[in-house]
Amino acid sequence: MSSSYRFEAVGVVHSPFKTPEEIPVERNADPRGFDDVRGELEIFPAFAPGLKDIDGFSHLFVLFAFHQATESKLQAKPPFDAKVRGIFATRSPHRPNALGLTVVKLEERRDGVLLVYGVDMIDGTPILDIKPYLDRDRKDVIRTGWLANR
Amino acid sequence: MSSSYRFEAVGVVHSPFKTPEEIPVERNADPRGFDDVRGELEIFPAFAPGLKDIDGFSHLFVLFAFHQATESKLQAKPPFDAKVRGIFATRSPHRPNALGLTVVKLEERRDGVLLVYGVDMIDGTPILDIKPYLDRDRKDVIRTGWLANR
Repeated sequence: MSSSYRFEAVGVVHSPFKTPEEIPVERNADPRGFDDVRGELEIFPAFAPGLKDIDGFSHLFVLFAFHQATESKLQAKPPFDAKVRGIFATRSPHRPNALGLTVVKLEERRDGVLLVYGVDMIDGTPILDIKPYLDRDRKDVIRTGWLANR
Repeated sequence: MSSSYRFEAVGVVHSPFKTPEEIPVERNADPRGFDDVRGELEIFPAFAPGLKDIDGFSHLFVLFAFHQATESKLQAKPPFDAKVRGIFATRSPHRPNALGLTVVKLEERRDGVLLVYGVDMIDGTPILDIKPYLDRDRKDVIRTGWLANR
Protein backbone atom coordinates (compact mmCIF):
# COMPACT_ATOMS: atom_id res chain seq x y z
CA MET A 1 0.00 0.00 0.00
CA SER A 2 1.64 3.18 -1.16
CA SER A 3 -0.25 6.35 -1.94
CA SER A 4 1.25 9.67 -2.81
CA TYR A 5 -0.17 13.15 -2.75
CA ARG A 6 0.92 16.26 -4.58
CA PHE A 7 0.73 19.75 -3.13
CA GLU A 8 1.63 23.11 -4.60
CA ALA A 9 2.98 26.24 -2.96
CA VAL A 10 0.30 28.80 -2.08
CA GLY A 11 2.83 31.34 -0.88
CA VAL A 12 6.35 31.98 0.33
CA VAL A 13 8.02 32.85 3.65
CA HIS A 14 10.14 35.97 4.00
CA SER A 15 12.51 35.39 6.91
CA PRO A 16 15.61 36.95 8.46
CA PHE A 17 17.22 33.49 8.29
CA LYS A 18 18.81 33.15 4.87
CA THR A 19 20.32 29.67 5.38
CA PRO A 20 19.45 26.70 7.61
CA GLU A 21 22.70 27.26 9.51
CA GLU A 22 21.46 30.65 10.73
CA ILE A 23 18.51 29.15 12.60
CA PRO A 24 19.21 28.70 16.33
CA VAL A 25 17.72 25.20 16.51
CA GLU A 26 18.25 24.87 20.27
CA ARG A 27 15.30 27.24 20.62
CA ASN A 28 13.05 24.31 19.79
CA ALA A 29 13.34 23.37 23.46
CA ASP A 30 12.57 26.91 24.65
CA PRO A 31 8.90 27.63 25.44
CA ARG A 32 9.38 31.08 23.90
CA GLY A 33 10.67 29.43 20.77
CA PHE A 34 11.14 31.98 18.02
CA ASP A 35 8.59 34.44 19.40
CA ASP A 36 10.81 37.45 18.72
CA VAL A 37 11.58 36.56 15.12
CA ARG A 38 9.49 38.59 12.71
CA GLY A 39 8.78 37.66 9.14
CA GLU A 40 6.18 37.75 6.42
CA LEU A 41 3.96 35.11 4.92
CA GLU A 42 3.27 36.15 1.33
CA ILE A 43 0.23 34.37 -0.07
CA PHE A 44 0.15 34.38 -3.86
CA PRO A 45 -2.66 36.49 -5.40
CA ALA A 46 -4.49 33.43 -6.75
CA PHE A 47 -4.93 32.16 -3.17
CA ALA A 48 -5.28 35.46 -1.27
CA PRO A 49 -9.12 35.31 -1.15
CA GLY A 50 -8.62 32.39 1.23
CA LEU A 51 -7.29 34.85 3.84
CA LYS A 52 -10.71 36.43 4.45
CA ASP A 53 -11.54 36.46 8.20
CA ILE A 54 -8.05 35.40 9.20
CA ASP A 55 -7.43 38.72 10.96
CA GLY A 56 -9.54 37.60 13.92
CA PHE A 57 -7.12 34.85 14.87
CA SER A 58 -4.11 35.65 17.03
CA HIS A 59 -2.16 32.53 16.11
CA LEU A 60 -1.87 30.45 12.96
CA PHE A 61 -0.38 27.15 11.93
CA VAL A 62 1.89 27.35 8.91
CA LEU A 63 2.41 24.11 6.99
CA PHE A 64 5.36 24.32 4.68
CA ALA A 65 7.85 22.32 2.63
CA PHE A 66 11.40 21.82 3.90
CA HIS A 67 12.46 22.55 0.34
CA GLN A 68 16.20 22.41 1.06
CA ALA A 69 16.08 19.09 2.90
CA THR A 70 18.12 16.63 0.89
CA GLU A 71 18.00 13.57 3.12
CA SER A 72 15.12 11.46 4.36
CA LYS A 73 16.09 9.85 7.65
CA LEU A 74 14.18 7.62 10.06
CA GLN A 75 16.50 8.39 12.96
CA ALA A 76 18.92 11.24 13.55
CA LYS A 77 20.95 12.95 16.24
CA PRO A 78 19.50 16.39 16.93
CA PRO A 79 22.22 19.08 16.78
CA PHE A 80 21.61 19.96 20.43
CA ASP A 81 21.37 16.43 21.78
CA ALA A 82 23.78 13.54 22.33
CA LYS A 83 21.62 10.61 21.24
CA VAL A 84 20.04 9.36 18.05
CA ARG A 85 16.27 9.91 18.14
CA GLY A 86 13.39 8.64 16.05
CA ILE A 87 12.60 11.28 13.43
CA PHE A 88 8.91 11.41 14.44
CA ALA A 89 10.10 12.41 17.94
CA THR A 90 11.94 15.42 16.47
CA ARG A 91 11.14 18.45 14.33
CA SER A 92 14.08 17.73 12.01
CA PRO A 93 13.66 18.70 8.35
CA HIS A 94 15.17 15.36 7.27
CA ARG A 95 11.93 13.37 7.44
CA PRO A 96 10.23 10.78 5.23
CA ASN A 97 7.97 13.62 4.06
CA ALA A 98 9.69 17.01 4.13
CA LEU A 99 6.71 18.74 5.76
CA GLY A 100 7.25 21.52 8.29
CA LEU A 101 4.91 22.99 10.88
CA THR A 102 5.20 26.20 12.88
CA VAL A 103 2.82 28.20 15.05
CA VAL A 104 3.11 31.95 14.39
CA LYS A 105 1.51 34.98 15.99
CA LEU A 106 -0.36 37.18 13.53
CA GLU A 107 0.57 40.81 13.99
CA GLU A 108 -1.07 42.34 10.95
CA ARG A 109 -2.47 41.48 7.57
CA ARG A 110 -1.72 43.65 4.54
CA ASP A 111 -3.81 42.25 1.71
CA GLY A 112 -2.10 39.00 0.77
CA VAL A 113 0.78 39.40 3.19
CA LEU A 114 0.70 38.30 6.83
CA LEU A 115 3.16 39.99 9.19
CA VAL A 116 3.93 37.42 11.86
CA TYR A 117 6.16 36.61 14.83
CA GLY A 118 7.58 33.17 15.52
CA VAL A 119 9.37 32.52 12.24
CA ASP A 120 11.76 29.55 12.29
CA MET A 121 11.79 28.89 8.56
CA ILE A 122 14.42 30.05 6.10
CA ASP A 123 13.77 32.77 3.56
CA GLY A 124 12.04 31.42 0.47
CA THR A 125 10.31 28.52 2.21
CA PRO A 126 7.24 27.42 0.21
CA ILE A 127 3.98 27.71 2.15
CA LEU A 128 1.55 24.82 1.61
CA ASP A 129 -1.25 25.79 3.99
CA ILE A 130 -2.36 28.19 6.72
CA LYS A 131 -4.79 27.11 9.44
CA PRO A 132 -6.24 28.93 12.45
CA TYR A 133 -4.93 27.90 15.89
CA LEU A 134 -7.99 26.97 17.94
CA ASP A 135 -8.73 26.44 21.63
CA ARG A 136 -8.65 22.71 21.05
CA ASP A 137 -5.01 22.99 19.91
CA ARG A 138 -3.91 24.33 23.31
CA LYS A 139 -2.78 21.53 25.58
CA ASP A 140 -2.25 22.60 29.17
CA VAL A 141 -0.30 19.74 30.61
CA ILE A 142 2.21 18.20 28.32
CA ARG A 143 5.28 16.01 28.50
CA THR A 144 8.08 16.59 26.05
CA GLY A 145 10.16 13.43 26.34
CA TRP A 146 13.86 13.63 25.57
CA LEU A 147 13.64 17.39 24.96
CA ALA A 148 12.62 18.01 28.59
CA ASN A 149 15.66 16.13 29.87
CA ARG A 150 18.32 17.75 27.77
CA MET B 1 6.12 30.75 -9.77
CA SER B 2 4.57 27.38 -9.12
CA SER B 3 6.30 24.59 -7.27
CA SER B 4 4.81 21.28 -6.31
CA TYR B 5 5.84 18.71 -3.74
CA ARG B 6 5.01 15.03 -3.53
CA PHE B 7 4.46 13.17 -0.27
CA GLU B 8 3.67 9.55 0.42
CA ALA B 9 1.64 7.95 3.18
CA VAL B 10 3.76 6.70 6.11
CA GLY B 11 0.77 5.19 7.87
CA VAL B 12 -2.99 5.09 8.21
CA VAL B 13 -5.56 6.25 10.77
CA HIS B 14 -7.99 3.81 12.37
CA SER B 15 -10.99 5.80 13.53
CA PRO B 16 -14.52 5.22 14.81
CA PHE B 17 -15.69 7.69 12.15
CA LYS B 18 -16.27 5.75 8.96
CA THR B 19 -17.53 8.66 6.82
CA PRO B 20 -17.02 12.44 6.93
CA GLU B 21 -20.70 12.85 7.82
CA GLU B 22 -20.16 11.02 11.12
CA ILE B 23 -17.69 13.62 12.40
CA PRO B 24 -19.32 16.17 14.74
CA VAL B 25 -17.62 19.18 13.16
CA GLU B 26 -19.12 21.66 15.62
CA ARG B 27 -16.61 20.29 18.11
CA ASN B 28 -13.94 22.31 16.32
CA ALA B 29 -15.13 25.23 18.42
CA ASP B 30 -15.03 23.23 21.68
CA PRO B 31 -11.80 23.50 23.70
CA ARG B 32 -12.17 19.78 24.52
CA GLY B 33 -12.44 19.06 20.81
CA PHE B 34 -12.36 15.34 20.16
CA ASP B 35 -10.51 14.48 23.38
CA ASP B 36 -12.75 11.48 24.10
CA VAL B 37 -12.42 9.93 20.65
CA ARG B 38 -9.95 7.07 20.64
CA GLY B 39 -8.23 5.71 17.59
CA GLU B 40 -5.01 4.23 16.32
CA LEU B 41 -2.23 5.61 14.18
CA GLU B 42 -0.70 2.70 12.33
CA ILE B 43 2.76 3.52 11.01
CA PHE B 44 3.86 1.24 8.21
CA PRO B 45 6.77 -1.11 9.10
CA ALA B 46 9.18 0.67 6.73
CA PHE B 47 8.75 3.88 8.76
CA ALA B 48 8.27 2.45 12.25
CA PRO B 49 11.93 3.00 13.29
CA GLY B 50 11.06 6.72 13.16
CA LEU B 51 8.87 6.21 16.24
CA LYS B 52 11.83 5.65 18.59
CA ASP B 53 11.63 7.96 21.64
CA ILE B 54 8.10 9.09 20.82
CA ASP B 55 6.71 7.47 23.98
CA GLY B 56 8.04 10.35 26.08
CA PHE B 57 5.72 12.87 24.47
CA SER B 58 2.18 13.27 25.75
CA HIS B 59 0.85 15.00 22.65
CA LEU B 60 1.61 14.71 18.95
CA PHE B 61 0.79 16.55 15.78
CA VAL B 62 -0.59 14.35 13.03
CA LEU B 63 -0.29 15.69 9.49
CA PHE B 64 -2.52 13.86 7.09
CA ALA B 65 -4.14 13.97 3.67
CA PHE B 66 -7.84 14.80 3.36
CA HIS B 67 -7.96 11.96 0.85
CA GLN B 68 -11.73 12.17 0.30
CA ALA B 69 -11.80 15.92 -0.30
CA THR B 70 -12.99 16.46 -3.84
CA GLU B 71 -13.20 20.23 -4.01
CA SER B 72 -10.58 22.92 -3.57
CA LYS B 73 -12.24 26.10 -2.35
CA LEU B 74 -10.85 29.48 -1.39
CA GLN B 75 -13.92 30.43 0.63
CA ALA B 76 -16.66 28.31 2.14
CA LYS B 77 -19.50 28.40 4.65
CA PRO B 78 -18.61 26.22 7.63
CA PRO B 79 -21.43 23.76 8.41
CA PHE B 80 -21.93 25.33 11.85
CA ASP B 81 -21.71 28.97 10.78
CA ALA B 82 -23.89 31.35 8.79
CA LYS B 83 -21.24 33.20 6.79
CA VAL B 84 -18.76 32.42 4.06
CA ARG B 85 -15.23 32.38 5.49
CA GLY B 86 -11.79 32.38 3.94
CA ILE B 87 -10.59 28.80 3.79
CA PHE B 88 -7.32 29.63 5.62
CA ALA B 89 -9.51 30.85 8.52
CA THR B 90 -11.15 27.41 8.74
CA ARG B 91 -10.09 23.79 9.19
CA SER B 92 -12.22 22.71 6.24
CA PRO B 93 -10.91 19.75 4.18
CA HIS B 94 -11.77 21.61 0.96
CA ARG B 95 -8.52 23.58 0.75
CA PRO B 96 -6.05 24.44 -2.02
CA ASN B 97 -3.83 21.70 -0.56
CA ALA B 98 -5.82 18.92 1.08
CA LEU B 99 -3.58 18.81 4.16
CA GLY B 100 -5.02 18.09 7.59
CA LEU B 101 -3.61 18.71 11.05
CA THR B 102 -4.74 17.36 14.41
CA VAL B 103 -3.24 17.30 17.90
CA VAL B 104 -3.68 13.93 19.59
CA LYS B 105 -2.86 12.65 23.06
CA LEU B 106 -0.62 9.60 23.06
CA GLU B 107 -1.96 6.91 25.35
CA GLU B 108 0.29 4.02 24.44
CA ARG B 109 2.61 2.76 21.76
CA ARG B 110 2.51 -0.83 20.61
CA ASP B 111 5.43 -1.26 18.21
CA GLY B 112 4.34 0.59 15.06
CA VAL B 113 0.88 1.48 16.36
CA LEU B 114 0.08 4.55 18.43
CA LEU B 115 -3.07 4.42 20.55
CA VAL B 116 -4.30 8.00 20.79
CA TYR B 117 -7.15 10.21 21.92
CA GLY B 118 -8.37 13.21 19.97
CA VAL B 119 -9.14 11.58 16.64
CA ASP B 120 -11.17 13.75 14.24
CA MET B 121 -10.14 12.01 11.03
CA ILE B 122 -12.10 9.35 9.18
CA ASP B 123 -11.04 5.73 9.10
CA GLY B 124 -8.44 5.08 6.43
CA THR B 125 -6.97 8.59 6.45
CA PRO B 126 -3.38 8.54 5.11
CA ILE B 127 -0.81 9.79 7.63
CA LEU B 128 1.94 11.95 6.14
CA ASP B 129 3.89 12.91 9.26
CA ILE B 130 3.98 12.75 13.06
CA LYS B 131 5.68 15.49 15.09
CA PRO B 132 6.10 16.01 18.83
CA TYR B 133 4.01 18.78 20.42
CA LEU B 134 6.47 21.05 22.22
CA ASP B 135 6.22 23.76 24.86
CA ARG B 136 6.65 26.35 22.13
CA ASP B 137 3.44 25.10 20.47
CA ARG B 138 1.36 25.99 23.54
CA LYS B 139 -0.08 29.47 23.23
CA ASP B 140 -1.63 30.74 26.44
CA VAL B 141 -3.66 33.69 25.26
CA ILE B 142 -5.30 33.30 21.92
CA ARG B 143 -8.07 34.87 19.91
CA THR B 144 -10.17 32.65 17.67
CA GLY B 145 -11.93 35.12 15.43
CA TRP B 146 -15.29 34.16 13.96
CA LEU B 147 -15.27 30.86 15.85
CA ALA B 148 -15.31 32.66 19.22
CA ASN B 149 -18.39 34.62 18.22
CA ARG B 150 -20.52 31.82 16.96
